[in-house]
Amino acid sequence: MSPRAAAKLPGRITLLTDFGTRDGYVAAMRGVIASIAPKVLVEDASHDVPAGDVTAAAWALGNYWRLYPAGTVHVAVVDPGVGTERRALAAGIAGHFFVAPDNGVLTRVLVDAGPGHLVSITEPAYLRDVVSRTFHGRDVFAPVAAHLATGVALESFGPPVTDPVRLDVLVPTRTGNVIRGQVVHVDRFGNLITNVPGDWIPPGARVRFAATDLGAVRQTYGDVATGHAVAVIGSAGYLEIGIRDGDAARVLWKGRGTAVVIDG
Amino acid sequence: MSPRAAAKLPGRITLLTDFGTRDGYVAAMRGVIASIAPKVLVEDASHDVPAGDVTAAAWALGNYWRLYPAGTVHVAVVDPGVGTERRALAAGIAGHFFVAPDNGVLTRVLVDAGPGHLVSITEPAYLRDVVSRTFHGRDVFAPVAAHLATGVALESFGPPVTDPVRLDVLVPTRTGNVIRGQVVHVDRFGNLITNVPGDWIPPGARVRFAATDLGAVRQTYGDVATGHAVAVIGSAGYLEIGIRDGDAARVLWKGRGTAVVIDG
Amino acid sequence: MSPRAAAKLPGRITLLTDFGTRDGYVAAMRGVIASIAPKVLVEDASHDVPAGDVTAAAWALGNYWRLYPAGTVHVAVVDPGVGTERRALAAGIAGHFFVAPDNGVLTRVLVDAGPGHLVSITEPAYLRDVVSRTFHGRDVFAPVAAHLATGVALESFGPPVTDPVRLDVLVPTRTGNVIRGQVVHVDRFGNLITNVPGDWIPPGARVRFAATDLGAVRQTYGDVATGHAVAVIGSAGYLEIGIRDGDAARVLWKGRGTAVVIDG
Repeated sequence: MSPRAAAKLPGRITLLTDFGTRDGYVAAMRGVIASIAPKVLVEDASHDVPAGDVTAAAWALGNYWRLYPAGTVHVAVVDPGVGTERRALAAGIAGHFFVAPDNGVLTRVLVDAGPGHLVSITEPAYLRDVVSRTFHGRDVFAPVAAHLATGVALESFGPPVTDPVRLDVLVPTRTGNVIRGQVVHVDRFGNLITNVPGDWIPPGARVRFAATDLGAVRQTYGDVATGHAVAVIGSAGYLEIGIRDGDAARVLWKGRGTAVVIDG
Repeated sequence: MSPRAAAKLPGRITLLTDFGTRDGYVAAMRGVIASIAPKVLVEDASHDVPAGDVTAAAWALGNYWRLYPAGTVHVAVVDPGVGTERRALAAGIAGHFFVAPDNGVLTRVLVDAGPGHLVSITEPAYLRDVVSRTFHGRDVFAPVAAHLATGVALESFGPPVTDPVRLDVLVPTRTGNVIRGQVVHVDRFGNLITNVPGDWIPPGARVRFAATDLGAVRQTYGDVATGHAVAVIGSAGYLEIGIRDGDAARVLWKGRGTAVVIDG
Repeated sequence: MSPRAAAKLPGRITLLTDFGTRDGYVAAMRGVIASIAPKVLVEDASHDVPAGDVTAAAWALGNYWRLYPAGTVHVAVVDPGVGTERRALAAGIAGHFFVAPDNGVLTRVLVDAGPGHLVSITEPAYLRDVVSRTFHGRDVFAPVAAHLATGVALESFGPPVTDPVRLDVLVPTRTGNVIRGQVVHVDRFGNLITNVPGDWIPPGARVRFAATDLGAVRQTYGDVATGHAVAVIGSAGYLEIGIRDGDAARVLWKGRGTAVVIDG
């Protein structure tokens, strides 16, 4: 019995894409879901992921999936490889379901809670009758999500997968007392969020960002003067670099890929 | 008995506007609907249609309406003529309902599945008590959609309409073996989508786009080299011109209105 | 018994933020709500409020809250002071509930329908186990909204508040026959919306905008020639200045703060 059935919760699907909304492509996915699973609640996570930016999608997904009730189906379609031989995945991880191209968009989920149970979507009975080469959001991922939300078992969709694609960039390294990471996300407010989990960082460790020593991790932005750079543990639990009352990405002229080193 | 009642599906309304969301105008429509029909599910198709762009709205609507379950009410309010004498329409077409200004926004629906049953919304009992001159989304279209979703019969809203406005630009022409169409939509990825249905194009036909002979319609973008232009049948079933791994609108410097000619 | 329980309506929450959607922060709020109150309907009002613009959020909220059914919970998180000592409010006003930082975002609600019943959110039982310093949308406002929507009484969340922050800018003044107001919002179409309620303005009054006499309030934009400025009562019931068939903010080069004087 699935966690959702046990709790008698309504089926629920979240949607994350880079489609924007204005072309009607997201509504096409919603229409397919509504036709298969009319009572399931569908929620928009975002359709404003930068086009083709799998890393940004992986980051965003990591910020919300675990906050939903167990049994939720999370769809993530940022899929620059659509129409190539890349696999399409359905997964059950930590009580949640995921539907996504096999391009690394599930990396944070797998790092935080994996390995879970993954399958390659191959069973045509759960796809639209005609699968286009360019719009698997509508023809593959939406119908599979709808069937998952109505209780179809994961193994029905295809054979197991044990080697999903991972984005190495999202995974920091630790050698002795030294942690090496990098900025993996710049949020709407200009904060530079790294891939280093806050609980990896020992008390008293010093943070070097680009060539600058930022000193110790602070409790809050308010611990430095206005306009100064500060390293804090952000709301998602990762080390982030910000500017008090400012936009760090603009002020520091840094972005994704900038190295951060923590000396424990 | 409506198709929805027969299947005991929840009432469902989709919203397509050019309002953006930040002024609270869309939420005003949602509030009106929730007050009349609190159990109906309301889904955002898009609120990012370019301001006043009826053609773009007509195109987007055509990409999703038919994928929803029968009985869904589709609201499309891109309405530069609000406050003038333009009619307001409610319609039943192919088992779906539509609520929209009579300005051509329903053209693709009518071309694909019409003529259906259309009425001019005139009955004040189904409108808000005071109808503003500038916000019929809230005062006319939202309440009519809510009443339709709860089962009020189409003919209750006003007298029949048999001459809805159509956008000629969305309809291609065929003379002998020659089909003449044009680009009617540029999607988020820069693909140039034409008004020529894929099933109008005979095998072996050649595509001329602007002054260039693109040769035959290909199966997929992958059939040409990176950076080359290609004509394919897109995910919505229409001829589209793209660049493999590129943005055709930018690379070819073409957009809406560019002519396409197919020699059969 | 709450108005919602009396009518057996589904619980309903609206969300207004300046978070955008692409970072997954809004979905985090939705996940928290879904885990506490899985049957409650959550609707996006907007996540595109300009970053930190409390006045714009207050204006948008005023355009929709009252159109929803009584019992709806309206969340408004535009919160540049997060992490400081600003209070977090829960409120019951005119049969609706509100959850927001105490920074003036409820000003229009309070002016139109207050004072209502306000409390300062202090009871940790209704918050997430760990409350971050930077993301009260997820850790404070979302769980409190979910608990309100499931029927937890307002007084459970903390002690009463009688002095909520108000934005003076949203309140016009009247001295004898002279009303003084200002532009408080520029909408997507470039209309300049003032804080002067239409029903304050006596018949025959003259409108001065910046240094220009616009004459009497007109019934509709169509009462002046194309390209001319006009004062009308807008769809939300407030005096607004527009240009017939044009973008007033661009043409008049005016924006928020521009004075308007009405001589009765």
